[in-house]
Amino acid sequence: MSTLGIWFVGARGSLATTATLGLHALAAGLTEAIGCVTEHPELDRRGLAGYDEVLVGGHDVVDTPLVKRAEELVAGGVVPQHLLRLVGDRLAATEHRLRHGVENAGTSGRGQRAEVERLARDIRAFGEEVDHVVVVDVSSTEQPYSPDDDTSSWSALRAAWEAGRAPLPASSVYACAALLADAAHAGFTPSTGIDLPALRQLAHQRAIPFAGCDGKTGETLVKSALAPMFATRALEVRSWTSVNLLGGGDGATLADPAAASSKTRAKRSGLDSMLGRPVDGPMHIDYVADLGDWKTAWDHVRFDGFLGTRMTMQFTWEGCDSTLAAPLVLDLARLLGRARAAGVLGPVPELGFFFKSPYDSDEHRLAQQWEALTRWSADCAARVERLTGEPDS
Amino acid sequence: MSTLGIWFVGARGSLATTATLGLHALAAGLTEAIGCVTEHPELDRRGLAGYDEVLVGGHDVVDTPLVKRAEELVAGGVVPQHLLRLVGDRLAATEHRLRHGVENAGTSGRGQRAEVERLARDIRAFGEEVDHVVVVDVSSTEQPYSPDDDTSSWSALRAAWEAGRAPLPASSVYACAALLADAAHAGFTPSTGIDLPALRQLAHQRAIPFAGCDGKTGETLVKSALAPMFATRALEVRSWTSVNLLGGGDGATLADPAAASSKTRAKRSGLDSMLGRPVDGPMHIDYVADLGDWKTAWDHVRFDGFLGTRMTMQFTWEGCDSTLAAPLVLDLARLLGRARAAGVLGPVPELGFFFKSPYDSDEHRLAQQWEALTRWSADCAARVERLTGEPDS
Amino acid sequence: MSTLGIWFVGARGSLATTATLGLHALAAGLTEAIGCVTEHPELDRRGLAGYDEVLVGGHDVVDTPLVKRAEELVAGGVVPQHLLRLVGDRLAATEHRLRHGVENAGTSGRGQRAEVERLARDIRAFGEEVDHVVVVDVSSTEQPYSPDDDTSSWSALRAAWEAGRAPLPASSVYACAALLADAAHAGFTPSTGIDLPALRQLAHQRAIPFAGCDGKTGETLVKSALAPMFATRALEVRSWTSVNLLGGGDGATLADPAAASSKTRAKRSGLDSMLGRPVDGPMHIDYVADLGDWKTAWDHVRFDGFLGTRMTMQFTWEGCDSTLAAPLVLDLARLLGRARAAGVLGPVPELGFFFKSPYDSDEHRLAQQWEALTRWSADCAARVERLTGEPDS
Amino acid sequence: MSTLGIWFVGARGSLATTATLGLHALAAGLTEAIGCVTEHPELDRRGLAGYDEVLVGGHDVVDTPLVKRAEELVAGGVVPQHLLRLVGDRLAATEHRLRHGVENAGTSGRGQRAEVERLARDIRAFGEEVDHVVVVDVSSTEQPYSPDDDTSSWSALRAAWEAGRAPLPASSVYACAALLADAAHAGFTPSTGIDLPALRQLAHQRAIPFAGCDGKTGETLVKSALAPMFATRALEVRSWTSVNLLGGGDGATLADPAAASSKTRAKRSGLDSMLGRPVDGPMHIDYVADLGDWKTAWDHVRFDGFLGTRMTMQFTWEGCDSTLAAPLVLDLARLLGRARAAGVLGPVPELGFFFKSPYDSDEHRLAQQWEALTRWSADCAARVERLTGEPDS
Ligand SMILES: NC(=O)c1ccc[n+]([C@@H]2O[C@H](COP(=O)([O-])OP(=O)(O)OC[C@H]3O[C@@H](n4cnc5c(N)ncnc54)[C@H](O)[C@@H]3O)[C@@H](O)[C@H]2O)c1
Ligand SMILES: NC(=O)c1ccc[n+]([C@@H]2O[C@H](COP(=O)([O-])OP(=O)(O)OC[C@H]3O[C@@H](n4cnc5c(N)ncnc54)[C@H](O)[C@@H]3O)[C@@H](O)[C@H]2O)c1
Ligand SMILES: NC(=O)c1ccc[n+]([C@@H]2O[C@H](COP(=O)([O-])OP(=O)(O)OC[C@H]3O[C@@H](n4cnc5c(N)ncnc54)[C@H](O)[C@@H]3O)[C@@H](O)[C@H]2O)c1
Ligand SMILES: NC(=O)c1ccc[n+]([C@@H]2O[C@H](COP(=O)([O-])OP(=O)(O)OC[C@H]3O[C@@H](n4cnc5c(N)ncnc54)[C@H](O)[C@@H]3O)[C@@H](O)[C@H]2O)c1
Ligand code: NA
Ligand code: NA
Repeated sequence: MSTLGIWFVGARGSLATTATLGLHALAAGLTEAIGCVTEHPELDRRGLAGYDEVLVGGHDVVDTPLVKRAEELVAGGVVPQHLLRLVGDRLAATEHRLRHGVENAGTSGRGQRAEVERLARDIRAFGEEVDHVVVVDVSSTEQPYSPDDDTSSWSALRAAWEAGRAPLPASSVYACAALLADAAHAGFTPSTGIDLPALRQLAHQRAIPFAGCDGKTGETLVKSALAPMFATRALEVRSWTSVNLLGGGDGATLADPAAASSKTRAKRSGLDSMLGRPVDGPMHIDYVADLGDWKTAWDHVRFDGFLGTRMTMQFTWEGCDSTLAAPLVLDLARLLGRARAAGVLGPVPELGFFFKSPYDSDEHRLAQQWEALTRWSADCAARVERLTGEPDS
Repeated sequence: MSTLGIWFVGARGSLATTATLGLHALAAGLTEAIGCVTEHPELDRRGLAGYDEVLVGGHDVVDTPLVKRAEELVAGGVVPQHLLRLVGDRLAATEHRLRHGVENAGTSGRGQRAEVERLARDIRAFGEEVDHVVVVDVSSTEQPYSPDDDTSSWSALRAAWEAGRAPLPASSVYACAALLADAAHAGFTPSTGIDLPALRQLAHQRAIPFAGCDGKTGETLVKSALAPMFATRALEVRSWTSVNLLGGGDGATLADPAAASSKTRAKRSGLDSMLGRPVDGPMHIDYVADLGDWKTAWDHVRFDGFLGTRMTMQFTWEGCDSTLAAPLVLDLARLLGRARAAGVLGPVPELGFFFKSPYDSDEHRLAQQWEALTRWSADCAARVERLTGEPDS
Repeated sequence: MSTLGIWFVGARGSLATTATLGLHALAAGLTEAIGCVTEHPELDRRGLAGYDEVLVGGHDVVDTPLVKRAEELVAGGVVPQHLLRLVGDRLAATEHRLRHGVENAGTSGRGQRAEVERLARDIRAFGEEVDHVVVVDVSSTEQPYSPDDDTSSWSALRAAWEAGRAPLPASSVYACAALLADAAHAGFTPSTGIDLPALRQLAHQRAIPFAGCDGKTGETLVKSALAPMFATRALEVRSWTSVNLLGGGDGATLADPAAASSKTRAKRSGLDSMLGRPVDGPMHIDYVADLGDWKTAWDHVRFDGFLGTRMTMQFTWEGCDSTLAAPLVLDLARLLGRARAAGVLGPVPELGFFFKSPYDSDEHRLAQQWEALTRWSADCAARVERLTGEPDS
Repeated sequence: MSTLGIWFVGARGSLATTATLGLHALAAGLTEAIGCVTEHPELDRRGLAGYDEVLVGGHDVVDTPLVKRAEELVAGGVVPQHLLRLVGDRLAATEHRLRHGVENAGTSGRGQRAEVERLARDIRAFGEEVDHVVVVDVSSTEQPYSPDDDTSSWSALRAAWEAGRAPLPASSVYACAALLADAAHAGFTPSTGIDLPALRQLAHQRAIPFAGCDGKTGETLVKSALAPMFATRALEVRSWTSVNLLGGGDGATLADPAAASSKTRAKRSGLDSMLGRPVDGPMHIDYVADLGDWKTAWDHVRFDGFLGTRMTMQFTWEGCDSTLAAPLVLDLARLLGRARAAGVLGPVPELGFFFKSPYDSDEHRLAQQWEALTRWSADCAARVERLTGEPDS
């Protein structure tokens, strides 16, 4: 087995802080791995890095100390107080591995290229300490971005930089840096990140695996379990309304309709795909400051049954976004780290289980995604075992 | 393709009446096949009887005319008025194929055997008009029944009759009659029906397929879609509370705690199996007369996430039981009719998709049941095609 | 007792059609007066017009026959089919008392004044048939309107007309016509209607009572019962989220954010007033075509208790807007008709029980509004009795 | 102003511990008085004891230290950790004022009388430290009890004791002791307590005020706000279903159907009275251990509107029982302490606002109870001011 480095973009956010603190607690045997998919008995764990074999580093643009962020999470009921007390030292140690990121993507070609290289150096330096690095983007959701010719290939991108243009949005600056530092990449936000022809090409050239995008943790998760029920039972969904109330940093970002629109677009398209046609109904993401990291989602489904009978189903989901997402982020890093070792490269559609908008896959149904994940995981495990020659548990 | 006969036990109940009326409406092209699983594009329909190739007959112990029952369903908002007007004649024709059943299972051995034979004659006579008969039990749920040695084999059963004992509950009297009349059997209620060693043995001897038990139409259906989500996401369900409010004939029967207990036991065991361990939480079935055929179910799920965070999900399901169940009853009859033609015999676990307590299967997860069903369906379709030599759409 | 005429603005809308049909059914003794507040034992009914003493007329800008609209309501499950069959003749008779209204409020001063006069003539002609007329505005909600000096007094308004300006929005054109025709006025929509200094002055001059505005029938009704509970129990409401899904004509109108904003503003201010301070939380009105006249509202209340404990309450309301509003519209007409007879003039804050934004009252608490209503009603009853000298039941 | 002593029966229970800790926090200015009705601006507070003028003592039958119970409440998320740290000393001081109570009510007449006297001595001793004592029963709910002739008068009770009989249930033993110790009494549970002719007579003789019974804190509170809405709007409630899920000590007690039945009977009768007739629908109280002190209630209301249209409302209430009840317990003690000073005696129906089954009152409507409470409070305040001659804030 090999050591793993997780490099968070947005390392001081709620999600990264929860994941970091949780990892330390797991490594110290202080908490159970609830919500960690990689602990599921159906998932082949051979060759995955142990929690005590993982180092954390990352970029952020704010300087609030990790421990301070963790205290805020304690106050918000996300993290139990006693855990913070017990892993405070480890958090402080991680603090030393955090670096300042890029506020925005730069305006000059030279500037953007330089930023990419600086970030890559940070990641490469971190990589010295571990066998594999996985960069996980958990920074604030960007506004929607429309790619142009400058990002249509790796050479076009370099040419654009030469010509003084700065075509990449910030999330893609980080993704590019990850690739140049030979790190795998997971895009947990709806931002563009690695999903540009230029960067996909670069990933192939450098034989690097990546996965994304936009973590599926709450209401969309439930949808991906429920919509197939309506579909296979041949019930006609006439409207599906979704309301998401959330506070916290993520909520504040999504209070901006432009940022929210990347989210709702993704949610809607998955639903339509599972139900086989466009479905009516509003979809709201609302910022309610008081809710903090807690999200309340209400969904209302109007469907018709036999002889046109009108029926409804509604559900309310009350979850803590950061603790729903944190274990998945650890899962993704462990799985991509091992995939790297197994020689997997390019987009990994089999990781679609984790995402609202899975790269290179139209499969949104949770059960089918689970089957694909477990099959792929067994396959990676076997390949790693063959390669390393060390039979592992 | 061959003609199909559906013989309902409980032919004048809400469910049977809705299914019969709906079948006539489908045959006449007056309604869409919403909720009919056999119309799903992923399900291989080759060799299934068309709606206009199906005849309905059945047993009941009350004499209320079908048209009267249908009018009550119109009044209760289950069936649209205009449909009843349009298929009233066909309903009246079906009326002539209904026979009086057995109130209870008889007390003397001779009496029970005679009842079985009388019922079998009714079914066999009906079978003259069609190629295959499927008996579908949609009668009132019986009280739980504990089998003894008398039903441990077909010869033991016959010996018991000889000795003057009457070991079968009513639902099994019907199932036995079905087998003696060479009809397939589907048990849509939680009653014992065919599920006794004696009758299973008889089914094998006579090479007859059967499926059951207890239609999965409402809250349990939703559970079978949602519970796997919690399981594969490694979220710890701490309690799952279920409340079912229903009126109608079925509600009145289940107001009797003894009858309700067959239902709740089945519901609970499926959930525990999907979640991998017993889960706390009450489960209520309440009779609320005013609700008629409409069922409201409320479920409350308390689960823990990463770091022990406490979260909840709740849903409310408002459905019309009879229109949820009716298309499934038609599906089961079509599928078992074709299975018969394909030479399938004994219990069909691949029909578990339709049931709360699938015979000979521990699989309660809806998505996995769907995969099994579609695979099996394609297999049957192919066998029928081979056997009949007629390529079919 | 005296005969009453109800003149609907928007006479062919869902609400007016339901109210008209329902009135005919009540007059014919074919339905119970469910939802009719004037039938409540605590409300003094002496002197109210009987249902068989009421005539209906009205304006609309579409020509769809009433019977056709009623058939649509039957199809939408708002009105039972058999009722329509039984009162079809009476509806056809009402058809003859409907007149074409004004599409918009006119652009020239002369045009607007002429319209007011034409409408007033229609109403006055109708008034020949009855003792008192109450004009009830149930037409589509207008976009918000900002009054200017031209409507600051009745003389300013006439001067503006002289000067060629047309300052009134359509709803106020109708209200002005009502006053000139000596009819009382009830504004059941959030539109401006009578609520302009010019028209209030005219109402006083002509000694005419009026009430408004915006019928309180669904989620706001529930709020006015629940918010006082939080307030008197000293629980701190931190956020109150409201989502309203509705189809139908009203839903289509409110799909326009400008029109919706009049509604949400009213809803919000009532809540803030009952809770004693501004409360956070989004408020949505969404058009979901499929829902027709049925409204589903979901409210989520986050409140703190002792020691800062975080608690929540949520409710879902599934109601039929037209049948919730129709009996109130009849109530208002009966009460205003009698108030007229009792010599009441100007705004009637005691009718606040019926409205989201009661004129001349800050009282939004339902229980207090009920007390005010019953007291006022008893007072009117007594006055009418004194005036007419006829002791009434 | 005078000092007040609160004597809790069940002093180590969740509710008493929360109230005690909260009182200390209020006295120290460490928390806001959220949920304290006596702080409402509409309630006349002149003459009420300040939080820093209140002492706590009490009986219980278990010996778990208060601080330990408080730690459990912290773990259950009922009480914030920092508060416990800050008032730990005060809690320890209160510990010294707790005495051992009576397990059950005794079996011999002599034994029961002796217990009453012993308990009365405890209370009287505590009373030395303060001006007025209010005994508040917050112990576990007893099984229903049927009074007989022995409790029909104070003399009959003494005669029964003489004759060797022990007719009082434990809650009444405490109530009797309270009266003999000249303390006012508040029955916050559904147990019999003071509500026997013998004890009511004694209260009158000794000129002591009392109030009860069964605190109205959750779902019944909501009902008392909502049911009047349906009633005054003349909507016909066809069924009202209530489900209460709760853990904690109270939940464990109520898991016993006999104990639960006292609760559900009270809840049902209030609803029927507000709606004017018996209403159908099940009412469940379920013990779900995992919920701890948190209660989730789901209510489903089916009602008809105009023309018989079928509508529904449902709500989910997620509250913390102990923090909902604790401030009310403090309110009751403060109000009864002042009532004592004002010379009030016997049952106080004006305190019905706090109870599910208010003594000597049929009024269950929250708004009307609020009016009665504020009026009575102003009256008491005025009387106390007159008596003491000291104008108070
Ligand atoms: N938590 C979930 O359930 C979930 C699910 C899906 C997606 N996500 C996504 O994960 C992301 C993080 O969520 P969160 O709740 O932690 O939000 P957050 O606001 O608490 O954290 C975001 C962090 O990103 C940092 N950041 C912003 N711009 C940056 C930049 N240019 N470079 C580096 N860091 C930058 C911020 O300073 C902040 O610390 C969001 O985009 C969210 O949409 C979260
Ligand atoms: N509708 C659903 O969603 C659903 C789902 C699962 C199971 N079920 C089961 O299906 C059955 C039918 O439901 P329903 O709503 O139509 O109930 P129902 O009460 O309307 O009809 C039952 C019919 O069975 C008849 N019957 C009773 N005893 C009989 C006997 N000994 N022989 C013949 N007929 C007899 C009754 O007279 C009645 O006509 C019930 O057992 C129910 O539990 C229904
Ligand atoms: N139903 C409720 O519960 C409720 C509650 C509060 C307020 N309201 C208000 O009542 C009104 C009616 O609701 P509805 O559901 O019947 O809507 P609807 O769309 O079915 O009916 C509105 C009618 O007004 C007519 N109209 C439009 N402009 C007109 C004009 N200039 N002159 C005359 N008629 C005109 C339309 O042609 C239509 O027939 C709406 O404004 C709605 O906001 C309804
Ligand atoms: N919390 C609420 O919202 C609420 C509302 C209405 C009524 N109540 C009632 O208040 C009571 C207390 O509730 P809780 O949650 O604190 O319960 P709890 O179980 O935590 O506390 C009850 C306490 O009473 C003690 N006790 C039992 N028998 C006794 C006896 N004979 N003498 C003295 N003490 C005895 C127990 O040892 C325990 O400490 C219950 O009866 C409950 O039904 C509570
Ligand atoms: Na995709
Ligand atoms: Na007002």
